[in-house]
Amino acid sequence: MPSRTRSSEIGMTQDTIRLFGLGLGPGDPDYMTVRARKVLETADRLVHFCKRGKRGNARTIADAIVGMNPAREIALVYPVTTEIPSDHPDYAAALSPFYEAAAMQLLAEVEAGRIVGVLCEGDPFFYGSFMHLWWRLKEKVPTEVVPAVSGMSGAWTRAGAPITWGDDVLTVLPGTLPEAELTRRLSNTDAAVVMKLGRNLPKVRTALASAGLLERAIYIERATMAEEKIVPLPEIPESMEAPYFSLIIVPGQGRRV
Amino acid sequence: MPSRTRSSEIGMTQDTIRLFGLGLGPGDPDYMTVRARKVLETADRLVHFCKRGKRGNARTIADAIVGMNPAREIALVYPVTTEIPSDHPDYAAALSPFYEAAAMQLLAEVEAGRIVGVLCEGDPFFYGSFMHLWWRLKEKVPTEVVPAVSGMSGAWTRAGAPITWGDDVLTVLPGTLPEAELTRRLSNTDAAVVMKLGRNLPKVRTALASAGLLERAIYIERATMAEEKIVPLPEIPESMEAPYFSLIIVPGQGRRV
Repeated sequence: MPSRTRSSEIGMTQDTIRLFGLGLGPGDPDYMTVRARKVLETADRLVHFCKRGKRGNARTIADAIVGMNPAREIALVYPVTTEIPSDHPDYAAALSPFYEAAAMQLLAEVEAGRIVGVLCEGDPFFYGSFMHLWWRLKEKVPTEVVPAVSGMSGAWTRAGAPITWGDDVLTVLPGTLPEAELTRRLSNTDAAVVMKLGRNLPKVRTALASAGLLERAIYIERATMAEEKIVPLPEIPESMEAPYFSLIIVPGQGRRV
Repeated sequence: MPSRTRSSEIGMTQDTIRLFGLGLGPGDPDYMTVRARKVLETADRLVHFCKRGKRGNARTIADAIVGMNPAREIALVYPVTTEIPSDHPDYAAALSPFYEAAAMQLLAEVEAGRIVGVLCEGDPFFYGSFMHLWWRLKEKVPTEVVPAVSGMSGAWTRAGAPITWGDDVLTVLPGTLPEAELTRRLSNTDAAVVMKLGRNLPKVRTALASAGLLERAIYIERATMAEEKIVPLPEIPESMEAPYFSLIIVPGQGRRV
């Protein structure tokens, strides 16, 4: 349950919000909320997650609005990303101390009097990495989460494909699930979004075909961004590995009146 | 597939967008996108759906940004809303000519040289009424859909309840489904959102109890708005009828590292 109301101005009172989970939306900076833009422009520290040697996805979205000021930036470099399957014990063993240390680092920033914004691609509370910082810090720091246009919403909008009509049921699935489970769930829904494609794309494609949905599936990469790609899934090469900003939608076919 | 790219300025060229499906988000005007704010401020006509004798939900969200200018407003008054069940033939018989006439009215506005914005609460392509105008007009009028923060995202954010962790599966269900189907689907998901509560709330509650999820369910009304209400579902009176801006979430309990 919410323990605080949102402050309408940041930095105004003693009781002010110190930590922001800042949803930046699907990519196009015009799809940021007014609230997100304001915090982005005013926070003392901008925090982003990234893979070693790469720019962070959320930081890239923010580029259109705020330039890099080294004194203002905090990069949290994942010790592992997709090298270890996320259900392997080594994954949690590597990630847990990483999130713990990151939380302590941000707590120190807040205790030094700074307003800290953690940049999140998409919506922070929808499969967001920020959640792992949030549950470690929410009792210690006045925190606000700024919701955002989700990546999937950017995708179905740009594809010109309303996702749910009438009484359609929508199922959102991570592509990391086993093929049989993907097939079973896809066979039993009106509309679907499959996230976390990466190297799971060939498996997801097979599951969609088994569920009889291949012809209705649309592959969308970097929706709302400059290199956007929107293609019927059957036209995508079978063995392709999908990049980070990609997903598959199966639009519903419910009641049109 | 998208047939046009988004114009970065509205009203600048002959080839400009003439019709906007304008997602306004969950309610708080700070959660509108920068794009939505701009179109809201500049469109020649603002269109909203409403129930006879009531203000429209989307128009209410826009109140904080744009006052009522009668010459600029077009109200589309539903001939029926919840008086007829949506699966009854009379429902389509009443709604179909209504949407048809509304589409023709907006087409006439566009043909008179005006930029028309249809206000949508939440995200237009996610169970939105705008979709029924969109499929009638999309081949006739250069159209842009502006995605938005969904009502469900506003709800889980304000409830302080991340909806999906790790490999959680999310199921979005309309409360209009039969109780047995609700129970079956709720029993078979990690996280859930139940929309379209209204008079279905007692049935949805029973289905959640049958699925063993009642204790995890959170009832959320008017998320991000002034009269916001966030309550564990077991504390809600059993026979209550839920208002329009309400939904139930069952947050996932997936992998935390």
